Amino acid sequence: MRKITFGVSNTLDNFVARSDDAIDWLMPSPEAAAVLVDYWKSIDTILMGRKTYDVALRRDEGEGLRSFGMRTYVFSRTLKPGEQDNVTIVSADAVDFVRALRGREGKDICLVSGGELAGALFEAGLIDEIRLNIHPLLLGSGIPLFHPMTGQIKLELLESRQFSNGCVLVRYGLKP
Amino acid sequence: MRKITFGVSNTLDNFVARSDDAIDWLMPSPEAAAVLVDYWKSIDTILMGRKTYDVALRRDEGEGLRSFGMRTYVFSRTLKPGEQDNVTIVSADAVDFVRALRGREGKDICLVSGGELAGALFEAGLIDEIRLNIHPLLLGSGIPLFHPMTGQIKLELLESRQFSNGCVLVRYGLKP
Repeated sequence: MRKITFGVSNTLDNFVARSDDAIDWLMPSPEAAAVLVDYWKSIDTILMGRKTYDVALRRDEGEGLRSFGMRTYVFSRTLKPGEQDNVTIVSADAVDFVRALRGREGKDICLVSGGELAGALFEAGLIDEIRLNIHPLLLGSGIPLFHPMTGQIKLELLESRQFSNGCVLVRYGLKP
Repeated sequence: MRKITFGVSNTLDNFVARSDDAIDWLMPSPEAAAVLVDYWKSIDTILMGRKTYDVALRRDEGEGLRSFGMRTYVFSRTLKPGEQDNVTIVSADAVDFVRALRGREGKDICLVSGGELAGALFEAGLIDEIRLNIHPLLLGSGIPLFHPMTGQIKLELLESRQFSNGCVLVRYGLKP
């Protein structure tokens, strides 16, 4: 079974973007980049919501999405389903789709969007690990990292690491 | 000027209590207790909201509130203002009250409640430090650690420390 990691950068008050989806507050870090490059070797698939996709497209005309050779699945109720380059727009139910994807051959999978998509996958028990790069900032408002859930989920701390730019990387495994 | 620290235990999804105010999920830790005892030497005053006060009263009939010899201020719009033992019920505006308190002689001050009270003090620039004991748990719902704010606040990471029970202590200074 392929491991699915929820991996994002967040603020201490658990936002992943400003209310207008902006991520201008992200702090570049050679240390964080090195950890990420290492992690990317273990995955071949990225899952994201439509808003994160929009941000990625605006950022570098989608170059980032193509250049790492990852298969990217974008979950959207509004975009037309289909495939172009390495990006597949999925209109099917995210939980069913990801459950099937997880059972197929391949390297591990990374979910890079918070909010509703992450909430649905958490509640369905499809997330194996959480990896947050906590930024030293209170945004006050924005797009939430976690959506409300009906149940609680116990975590196991796997790692916490402090970067010189003031970010803290934490990794947790999800207990069944 | 006395330093005001916002110091609480939270879950990774930034709740400080269940929806019914329960904090049964708190994990005891000799390491965390040692850090706390050390920190308490620097303070003589505790600030809390009415809900946190209710929980403290229910927990040990308020023994914890009296036994540490701290002066405790409880902000409430419903309780009758007044003083008993070391506990003072305050119905005045929290921001004005705390601003005055901060200028008076004394040791440092700790705010132990999240939500609206913390939000108001953050927005008024009255918090100097954040100290969180992040528990390895997603509660899914409950009493939020941070209230929405109109502005953002930059933080400076002072310390991050991993405890053997899987909690992570983080300390941040607030940048002006």
